[in-house]
Amino acid sequence: MTDQTLSAADILARIADTLETRRPENGGDPTASYSAKLLAKGPDSFLKKIGEEATELVMAAKDGVPDRIVSETADLWFHCLVALTHFNLRPEAVLAELARREGLSGLVEKASRPQD
Amino acid sequence: MTDQTLSAADILARIADTLETRRPENGGDPTASYSAKLLAKGPDSFLKKIGEEATELVMAAKDGVPDRIVSETADLWFHCLVALTHFNLRPEAVLAELARREGLSGLVEKASRPQD
Amino acid sequence: MTDQTLSAADILARIADTLETRRPENGGDPTASYSAKLLAKGPDSFLKKIGEEATELVMAAKDGVPDRIVSETADLWFHCLVALTHFNLRPEAVLAELARREGLSGLVEKASRPQD
Amino acid sequence: MTDQTLSAADILARIADTLETRRPENGGDPTASYSAKLLAKGPDSFLKKIGEEATELVMAAKDGVPDRIVSETADLWFHCLVALTHFNLRPEAVLAELARREGLSGLVEKASRPQD
Repeated sequence: MTDQTLSAADILARIADTLETRRPENGGDPTASYSAKLLAKGPDSFLKKIGEEATELVMAAKDGVPDRIVSETADLWFHCLVALTHFNLRPEAVLAELARREGLSGLVEKASRPQD
Repeated sequence: MTDQTLSAADILARIADTLETRRPENGGDPTASYSAKLLAKGPDSFLKKIGEEATELVMAAKDGVPDRIVSETADLWFHCLVALTHFNLRPEAVLAELARREGLSGLVEKASRPQD
Repeated sequence: MTDQTLSAADILARIADTLETRRPENGGDPTASYSAKLLAKGPDSFLKKIGEEATELVMAAKDGVPDRIVSETADLWFHCLVALTHFNLRPEAVLAELARREGLSGLVEKASRPQD
Repeated sequence: MTDQTLSAADILARIADTLETRRPENGGDPTASYSAKLLAKGPDSFLKKIGEEATELVMAAKDGVPDRIVSETADLWFHCLVALTHFNLRPEAVLAELARREGLSGLVEKASRPQD
């Protein structure tokens, strides 16, 4: 992996890193960033979106439109990442839990803690 | 990265690979595997779970219990992966969409297609 | 019951009657009425709201705030009434189904068809 | 209206009355009644169902099957009634809120309190 490329894992970690800077206590500007606005408003703002985006994913899936399924899943996961940020949790912890359940955990390196 | 370790990205790809083998047309056995059962039953079975797990994540977040937030997010993402599998889509496509939105897409290598 | 009063049953029937006039084919004006706008946009617009309002009800219940629980339940039921309208269904049919399940159906008078 | 018939309003009130007897403190038997079991388990058990039934209603509506739309709406409203019971609230309060919003409140008699 060179400096010019990101693995998929890095994408979640990088988004989590960016979201961390959007927290009110880290100077996130609610007028300049959608996620800073959600984090400033507090949990109900992004939890409501999780319910909404889950429903939109279900509707996209019922319609069977691949682009919308991908897009709505991205919306849903994004708002999950915002929620994780609010609660001082990392996507790596979710991936580690998935790996554990799938019997992949012996192969996982540092997935349960923040990337260095 | 050695052969003994998996990056977080690999976790999603590996779970997607496993789910692919659980599809009825690939010989997935509904009596032996939960995800094979969902894929055999068809979309409503796992879409319903997406709505249910999203609600459970919201409740865990309202309670503010970190372990449950991680566990419910894992449940929600897992059922999203089942839905993606049914529609012949890959988690890499979702990650690429997230990267594109976050302005990371120039740095993404092959995130939108299956891992080799 | 005098002409000046409405029973609770009448409330649902009256709202359904009003929603009927909001349908595009009945001249509902999307610029003048929220429900006319939803009905003009089509199912995804109000189905998405059902998912959103269900989540908001769950959050209000987790907070245990009675006024919000009532208000969010009203939001949820209202968007259900919009959906029923779109599909040419009446709230009386839902109430009749509830009565049937609860063993009240022998006592129900014309609950499954529009009020005269 | 004779003693042998129930208006739709009465249906919601009667179900609420029955649910009241299913509360643990009123001797509801979790082994004999589904709603007594939900009320004994506590809020998460029926709030989760609200999320699940909302999703099932959305799926039924996407499929456009009238019977399922009615049935899923009944499921959703029923679990809302269970939640209202837990929080010492009545469906009449929800109907009064709907009437207030629709400008029907001047016509409503005693919708915000239990039926005598």
